[in-house]
Amino acid sequence: MRVRNKPWAQPLIDANSELITEAPEQYAGQWETRFVANQPIHVEIGMGKGQFIVGMAKAHPEINFIGVEIQKSVAATALKLALPEKLPNLQLVSGAGESIDTYFQPQEVTQLYLNFSDPWPKTRHTKRRLTYKSFLAAYQNILPANGVIELKTDNQGFFEYSLVSLNNFGMVFDGVWLDLHNSEENEANVETEYEQKFSAKGQPIYKVRAHFISPKNKQRSEK
Amino acid sequence: MRVRNKPWAQPLIDANSELITEAPEQYAGQWETRFVANQPIHVEIGMGKGQFIVGMAKAHPEINFIGVEIQKSVAATALKLALPEKLPNLQLVSGAGESIDTYFQPQEVTQLYLNFSDPWPKTRHTKRRLTYKSFLAAYQNILPANGVIELKTDNQGFFEYSLVSLNNFGMVFDGVWLDLHNSEENEANVETEYEQKFSAKGQPIYKVRAHFISPKNKQRSEK
Repeated sequence: MRVRNKPWAQPLIDANSELITEAPEQYAGQWETRFVANQPIHVEIGMGKGQFIVGMAKAHPEINFIGVEIQKSVAATALKLALPEKLPNLQLVSGAGESIDTYFQPQEVTQLYLNFSDPWPKTRHTKRRLTYKSFLAAYQNILPANGVIELKTDNQGFFEYSLVSLNNFGMVFDGVWLDLHNSEENEANVETEYEQKFSAKGQPIYKVRAHFISPKNKQRSEK
Repeated sequence: MRVRNKPWAQPLIDANSELITEAPEQYAGQWETRFVANQPIHVEIGMGKGQFIVGMAKAHPEINFIGVEIQKSVAATALKLALPEKLPNLQLVSGAGESIDTYFQPQEVTQLYLNFSDPWPKTRHTKRRLTYKSFLAAYQNILPANGVIELKTDNQGFFEYSLVSLNNFGMVFDGVWLDLHNSEENEANVETEYEQKFSAKGQPIYKVRAHFISPKNKQRSEK
């Protein structure tokens, strides 16, 4: 998603430093100081306009949520959505998902969400896909031994790639859904903006939930 | 697939014992005696009316193929299809896939095919699905350390289940296709009868190719 620069973005971010940060590294190991309650942290990488992470924070007050978005204008739009909700269990980050393991100490995060990530369909861009093995290694660094990733996408090629990549990394599948919106799994589903628009056209949404196992078994095959 | 008994089935099978057997156990460890050339053996479990296994045997003379079918009348129909082809690299079995590891010695088979297996959609029938862990263990028994399974199906629920089951068993995915007939993988695809009919309706065919790894790492998680 290429986004026009929004002149109001930076001032809005600056004015709401209690809810959003552009320097997430400085909170590594002390994210609990940004929340009211000391409880498990779930992180969405690529929150877009924030509908999912705000919806999750409202639905699950027993969990602390952090939404990360690389594009500042988009992060600022999510901030606009989050501000009136005044959720004590939500924090936002304007920053790159690539450096996610500099944002958190090992095991500081319980669960990760990847929703409708850029599919980077060209083979030469494989390493940019958020399920490429170098990203998975970064996620594993910040998650506990059995840390969970939930991934949703409408992109067939990205889903096919991600199933293979997660499997090859040694992750254990807890569930695969090839038509999420027509499954029981959808009962607790919180939709993203994109998901809402896309599924209205009747096309399937794919989902996988998988967890890491102990690092020594992790890399089962080199591709 | 429930099939009417065909009175001609047993006489046809009896008359062609050089091409089809009802006693596969007696060839365990000596299947090469049933073939002209000593070359890798690929097995299809549930060959149906035989279009796939006959097509594969014609396309790949460098491989010996064995088609297994539990329903005698269906196996006899496959036999009818195979007879005029006179393929020196094809053998048929009328017998149950459940006992597959009594048909072959360890490592006697190089690759397995599961095509459009009965999905057994009810949860109480999970153990009957040909990708249930007890079947996977039997397959592993007859395959080499890196033995390959290729699975095709049109059944969404069975494919979702199979991806999770193969993954949980510790199998490594080589590729996943959510719309086989619109992928590059389809160039070498040999269709089954069922696949041909079904895909004509425009619905997607799913495929996964996966291989086993060494037994000591195989069971990564107990569900």
